[in-house]
Amino acid sequence: MTDVRSGAGRTPSRAVEQALVDAAERVLVRDGLGAVTVRAVATEAGVAPMGVYNRFGSKDGLIAAVLVRGFDGLRAAVTEDADPDPIARLLASGRNYRRFALAQPQHYGAMFGGRPLPTEGADELVAYAAAAFEALVDHVRHAMARGALREQDPTETAQLIWSSVHGAVSLELGGAVLTPDPAVTYESLLHLLVDGLRRPPP
Amino acid sequence: MTDVRSGAGRTPSRAVEQALVDAAERVLVRDGLGAVTVRAVATEAGVAPMGVYNRFGSKDGLIAAVLVRGFDGLRAAVTEDADPDPIARLLASGRNYRRFALAQPQHYGAMFGGRPLPTEGADELVAYAAAAFEALVDHVRHAMARGALREQDPTETAQLIWSSVHGAVSLELGGAVLTPDPAVTYESLLHLLVDGLRRPPP
Repeated sequence: MTDVRSGAGRTPSRAVEQALVDAAERVLVRDGLGAVTVRAVATEAGVAPMGVYNRFGSKDGLIAAVLVRGFDGLRAAVTEDADPDPIARLLASGRNYRRFALAQPQHYGAMFGGRPLPTEGADELVAYAAAAFEALVDHVRHAMARGALREQDPTETAQLIWSSVHGAVSLELGGAVLTPDPAVTYESLLHLLVDGLRRPPP
Repeated sequence: MTDVRSGAGRTPSRAVEQALVDAAERVLVRDGLGAVTVRAVATEAGVAPMGVYNRFGSKDGLIAAVLVRGFDGLRAAVTEDADPDPIARLLASGRNYRRFALAQPQHYGAMFGGRPLPTEGADELVAYAAAAFEALVDHVRHAMARGALREQDPTETAQLIWSSVHGAVSLELGGAVLTPDPAVTYESLLHLLVDGLRRPPP
């Protein structure tokens, strides 16, 4: 068997790790989450399976590394637009959330598809997932501080928004949007949310 | 191998089918969707595998029969409360939707978990899934006809509600509700929806 550590000696360790996560993402996109195994990723990357075990501990550690990238990409999408108008910023982050999910459906499914997240490497994974949610909470706080959204617990408000947009993109990815244009219906949902959260209760 | 057709001769065919779907539901609840195979269900029901093949054609046909029950149960939950007040009726159906999902998480995951639905027996399955959604559309129409909700395409309005409640229960089943009490947050979501849909646009 190839001694992968001598390979690591030739290539900076971080670069090898990134190449393995790249390979795992290619397997995920091409063949689905169930196909992301140590063996498949080693083959894809052209290294010995032990090279994957040495760096990620197991298949779960490898999947966690892919999901870390996914949550980091989602956080980036949610924070991409920093429109000074708080409502415009919320609407843009909602649109970017959908765009992320539709562009990377396999990632989105792995992140939120109802399968338990891997436990190995979970501290980092949980931190990245929390950072993506916190990006939304920050938009909500920003809007409340400027009087654009009704004052209430920002985590509660963010959870309401997240529930709705997650449901919408999940149904769209599953082919279960029964209206003619999912983009139009999604836009209506975003406006329903911000209008409802903007106004004082009746 | 046992001749299951002689078994079917002793027991009315419909009752045997129901017993096999019962067995498949027990396997689903106990071991998850991946464990629902012809062999496992035959063992659970105490029949030969050929008895399952003869009635359901394949594992997909068997799973479709389980999902038909699931969608029929969801339709029943959504229509259970026929409060004469249209908003009260909508809120009750939203609560019953969550109660159904939390009581039968394995069914809910199989119905909406993002895996492709089986194609065999799909006509019946699609009809039952559509009936569950139509039950919500009926509540929406009822509310619009009485001036309780803003007039717009009832399918569009129902899709907005479904997206939100589906997202909320999916996150709750996945342990991703980050507020202290998911029931309280869900209730806020229902009110946000009906309040937003009730009022004229600004």
